[in-house]
Amino acid sequence: MTRGILITGGAGYVGSHTVAALIEWRAEQDYEIVVVDNLSNAHRENGQKKPEPLRIIEEMTDKTIQFYDVDIGDRDGLSKIFEKHSIDCVIHFAALKAVGESVQKPLEYYQVNITGTCTLFEVMRKYGVYKLVYSSSCTVYGEPERLPIDEGHPTGRGLTSPYGRSKYFCEEIMKDLCTSDQKWMIVSLRYFNPVGAHSSGRIGEDPAGTPNNLMPYISQVAVGRLDELLVFGDDYPTADGTGVRDYVHVADLAQGHLHAVRLLADPTYKGFQAINLGTGTGYSVLQMISAFEAASGRKIPYRIVGRRAGDIAANYADVSLAQKLLGWRATRTLDDMCRDTWRWQSINPNGFKKS
Amino acid sequence: MTRGILITGGAGYVGSHTVAALIEWRAEQDYEIVVVDNLSNAHRENGQKKPEPLRIIEEMTDKTIQFYDVDIGDRDGLSKIFEKHSIDCVIHFAALKAVGESVQKPLEYYQVNITGTCTLFEVMRKYGVYKLVYSSSCTVYGEPERLPIDEGHPTGRGLTSPYGRSKYFCEEIMKDLCTSDQKWMIVSLRYFNPVGAHSSGRIGEDPAGTPNNLMPYISQVAVGRLDELLVFGDDYPTADGTGVRDYVHVADLAQGHLHAVRLLADPTYKGFQAINLGTGTGYSVLQMISAFEAASGRKIPYRIVGRRAGDIAANYADVSLAQKLLGWRATRTLDDMCRDTWRWQSINPNGFKKS
Repeated sequence: MTRGILITGGAGYVGSHTVAALIEWRAEQDYEIVVVDNLSNAHRENGQKKPEPLRIIEEMTDKTIQFYDVDIGDRDGLSKIFEKHSIDCVIHFAALKAVGESVQKPLEYYQVNITGTCTLFEVMRKYGVYKLVYSSSCTVYGEPERLPIDEGHPTGRGLTSPYGRSKYFCEEIMKDLCTSDQKWMIVSLRYFNPVGAHSSGRIGEDPAGTPNNLMPYISQVAVGRLDELLVFGDDYPTADGTGVRDYVHVADLAQGHLHAVRLLADPTYKGFQAINLGTGTGYSVLQMISAFEAASGRKIPYRIVGRRAGDIAANYADVSLAQKLLGWRATRTLDDMCRDTWRWQSINPNGFKKS
Repeated sequence: MTRGILITGGAGYVGSHTVAALIEWRAEQDYEIVVVDNLSNAHRENGQKKPEPLRIIEEMTDKTIQFYDVDIGDRDGLSKIFEKHSIDCVIHFAALKAVGESVQKPLEYYQVNITGTCTLFEVMRKYGVYKLVYSSSCTVYGEPERLPIDEGHPTGRGLTSPYGRSKYFCEEIMKDLCTSDQKWMIVSLRYFNPVGAHSSGRIGEDPAGTPNNLMPYISQVAVGRLDELLVFGDDYPTADGTGVRDYVHVADLAQGHLHAVRLLADPTYKGFQAINLGTGTGYSVLQMISAFEAASGRKIPYRIVGRRAGDIAANYADVSLAQKLLGWRATRTLDDMCRDTWRWQSINPNGFKKS
């Protein structure tokens, strides 16, 4: 039986780009790509078996993706997948991820992000699968005590949302798992701010409702879906007063996951390791607007409003550990991020929905 | 329909003493006592419907306890209880609690202590029940930065076991719950070191296997079930070099829960509040041995061995908040704790098991 990589949440934003990268990864063509996704945040066209991102990737690559419409909290459903496929490694994206919504619905976030994750781990253990790449977030660092943020920065302090706490709790649970049983091999990738889209312009970020994140907000203003961009605060202690973040191209992130899978193929790898994925460079909101205007040729109307609760001034990664352990660094520039986002958004003004 | 108080884990050590106290509490005889317990850590005699502690309490009080052998992770099972009884308030004890075991079995601990708790909260919300007394622990403080420990002491830092983390995570989840919906009214009682037994000598602590905690260890040595007491470290920076803890009589703890239930009956109460339950006085291991020898008239052979990983030097509570908010303070002395433990242990050398 061909070895398989299971990608939970593989129909989502970072998940689908990682699936695309896995398929394009020549050296690993002997891996079967198995995706599990409950479609809570992914679009499936009427009459289609597979969610749009996966259908499009299959069309582009002429490869087959094994897809299961299963919730990670569904122990029996997950077990059937492990019985049917010879899973070697799991890349675990499946989670709820809207920071603001998590404040309104904490129980839902904890049940999906923690209980679901623990259930996945139980099923992995039952089938002797101990290699895991976890989708974490720079949110676990809370308000930075120092910049750039390296992996030794304290985590779990001053977290402002159940979303952030759920990511932090999962990391702590994974550390305990590795302490309890040496068989576990876990890489937790702490993403900074994923942006951009596949270079084909056919898959990209398609948030439900009004975007929480800057880049999809800008691009929806550029394409005319939204009237203007709200800039939350211009009185931060940054060069131009607006918030600074470490934006990283989703295609670079996807590559980071391939490198993590490769790292786990090393039999001497042991235990839990957290690794930042970012560019190491921070850009302000106003810099992002300028760059996007240049890439799209569109004017982005914006309005400065008050700070948003829970936002921090500046945040960017020390990316030396990723270079050292994964041999990975982000290669795509801010212009690449804007150009690819714009290509995706202008071709697909309504995201994956056909109408 | 008579209003009910649901006690999860009500067949356990602190749970059963609280059930006894609730029944003895004259003012609240109009409350129906409903216990849910999966008996994972409680003894039921062959042929009996109810676990021993509850059967004995019924016998002593001539009152009926509604008992359900249901796991708190069983959503449907819990729902049926809320449908059948008009639950007004939940006292949530049900959890796995062995610190050492939690290091070996982190997933089990997180699934029971976090997932189970979240599932209970979901069911409570579904049935419009928002009053909760939670069974927390001084473990959430980690290594004390100052003594005595007040409730403003940081939590979640330097925790050394999945057990401790699970209690800390649950507190954070409950805070998020209260932020998300003003209807929630939650008191989290942070126990210091519960010891002692019911004054009848008929219910008490009955740990499975070799006890992790000092008092049951001492009493099992006293009664001859164990040969000698191991004292883990005599080189701590304390008066006699052995670890210092804030031992509190389980009957005092039980009273603390009644006061918390009373606090939640105040309609102006809002949100989440953590409250220490301890005596405010710390005793060393050697002091405990002496006191137990005096109370039991038995010699306790002991041997000093190395420190146990994860143990701290000293720990005792600032108990002023409990006095202020609950009008509660511990009234039972160290001699009471030893005498009552010894009464229970000497009458029941094998705990609740008949043989």
